[in-house]
Amino acid sequence: MSILIIPPIKNMTHLASSVVVGGAGFIGSNLVMRLLAEGIKVIVMDNFSAGRHRYLDKFKDHPNLKLIEVDISIRTQCRDAFNLASHNGSIYEIWHMAANSDISAGVSNPNIDLKDTFLTTFELLLSAEEHEISNFHFASSSAIYGDLGSAVLKEDIGPLLPISNYGAMKLASEAQLSAAAEKFLTRLNIFRFPNVVGTPATHGVILDFIKKLAKNNQVLDVLGNGAQKKSYLHVSDLIDAMLFIRNKSTQDKVEVINIGPSDDGVTVKWIAEQVVSRVSPNARIIFGEGPKGWVGDVPRFTYSTERLRSFGWFPKLNSCQSVSQAIDEIVSQFHR
Amino acid sequence: MSILIIPPIKNMTHLASSVVVGGAGFIGSNLVMRLLAEGIKVIVMDNFSAGRHRYLDKFKDHPNLKLIEVDISIRTQCRDAFNLASHNGSIYEIWHMAANSDISAGVSNPNIDLKDTFLTTFELLLSAEEHEISNFHFASSSAIYGDLGSAVLKEDIGPLLPISNYGAMKLASEAQLSAAAEKFLTRLNIFRFPNVVGTPATHGVILDFIKKLAKNNQVLDVLGNGAQKKSYLHVSDLIDAMLFIRNKSTQDKVEVINIGPSDDGVTVKWIAEQVVSRVSPNARIIFGEGPKGWVGDVPRFTYSTERLRSFGWFPKLNSCQSVSQAIDEIVSQFHR
Repeated sequence: MSILIIPPIKNMTHLASSVVVGGAGFIGSNLVMRLLAEGIKVIVMDNFSAGRHRYLDKFKDHPNLKLIEVDISIRTQCRDAFNLASHNGSIYEIWHMAANSDISAGVSNPNIDLKDTFLTTFELLLSAEEHEISNFHFASSSAIYGDLGSAVLKEDIGPLLPISNYGAMKLASEAQLSAAAEKFLTRLNIFRFPNVVGTPATHGVILDFIKKLAKNNQVLDVLGNGAQKKSYLHVSDLIDAMLFIRNKSTQDKVEVINIGPSDDGVTVKWIAEQVVSRVSPNARIIFGEGPKGWVGDVPRFTYSTERLRSFGWFPKLNSCQSVSQAIDEIVSQFHR
Repeated sequence: MSILIIPPIKNMTHLASSVVVGGAGFIGSNLVMRLLAEGIKVIVMDNFSAGRHRYLDKFKDHPNLKLIEVDISIRTQCRDAFNLASHNGSIYEIWHMAANSDISAGVSNPNIDLKDTFLTTFELLLSAEEHEISNFHFASSSAIYGDLGSAVLKEDIGPLLPISNYGAMKLASEAQLSAAAEKFLTRLNIFRFPNVVGTPATHGVILDFIKKLAKNNQVLDVLGNGAQKKSYLHVSDLIDAMLFIRNKSTQDKVEVINIGPSDDGVTVKWIAEQVVSRVSPNARIIFGEGPKGWVGDVPRFTYSTERLRSFGWFPKLNSCQSVSQAIDEIVSQFHR
């Protein structure tokens, strides 16, 4: 196992640490930034499949950050990482932000989501039990709902019939976590994410469009007819919502909660137009056929965030604003 | 891999076969009996962890039965088994009846349900896709609902928070099957089983009680306070319901359906009294403490079979009758 440690352990304080798995990825690195800002000791575990060292560059000398390069889905590596991480102090909580992020690749090859999306959860729970880490926060997904047509996706809807292996293995993770909450976890937050936008972008529709236009600035080919409508949350709002729930004073042992904006989203067509107008105003947009971009794509859904709002949390940005801001940010990232 | 073939392949007809995974187990062997009675060619795949050759003894010379000893959760074995099975004709459908049946053992060691309850499903789907087998029937469980308190367990309830690894890996299987239905399955039945009783009993509360009384006919120790109330279905009714749904002329591509009696069940205390009165009338029954028999036990739930009844299927026996008949059958089995 390749282990990279930044900074030396002696610099770390004696407070219990937060482990962020996938902490070098898009959402993970934003979470790490916020936790460090709040004075929390953070141990990032990442296999750098989607994550990048450079996403954590600005904290590389931070005394409260430790980085362990590890593939959590592999039993021996996961064990070694937690033995190392707990060597110099107790671990208070695990944030599990790691998963396969290429849903389409996971549909072609189910082994990808088995390993990266589910076995990561399974192995983390074995280590959590061994090290008596009883607080667990999980990045689940609206993909667990599957395609329920016009139904409003509240947390208590069923049956849950995901249409991608990614969604399936997120639901499998929820289930395994739930059983662990019966056995040894004292606190479990299952955050069901919407589409999240912002930087450092590693995947997603905005980045795809910008990359396509970088190759050919005259034409933008869109998968599907563009009518797919989804809600988008800016990553800054997402982190804010997760910490809000984590810090809430009255809590159920197991919290299952949709995170998202209050609106019903924007279409892929609208996003394509925004990207084109920002990046290459003369490009022609060519749409594909059918309502789905790819197998496993859920064309349109209404995502209820009523529960989250009932606790008093509201996003700063709606779907339009989130996408617009993210386009600006990703364009800057791309041209940096 | 140890392969046992009964009877020689040359005896088999040219019709497409039904594969029954776990076909040498309690429910599986009853299903095999019914399928053979309907003239269907059956290929049993079983690893004989809970299943027994003797459960299929009476069909061992049946021209339509083939038996493959295989651990389906192991990739190479699963592949070899399906290559062998499809060698002499196409496979029409897979019935997946295999799982870990010791819920308590699976709570202690999560690897058991990962392998026997989930990876069996995962590997079967890889083989199903490879061999273009597009009909899949799955033995799921009421355990996927977890402990939802006083809520009526209809198929559309959520959130699904199983409290045992068994329930978790059944839900994980449902999820993976659902994604496969989006990709290549043309028909998927997810049967959510209640507690099923009958013979050949391999596990369960009735057999446990009879075994305990065989060791000590003066005292019956009951786990928990006996107030756990559950509905029970006789295996003959269960098989009947599954075939009813499988043979229904109008069908959704994916059917998720609770199977069970219409009543709300009987208590563990009542079952203990019935077993004692039948087996050892002078034995004293001693109850434990608390509502749960063990971690992962759901003490009391109301299981809705409204959907099943709306299709016109009704069980022949209620919970009381099912348990009473099963006690008689298991006593005979035990003393044979």
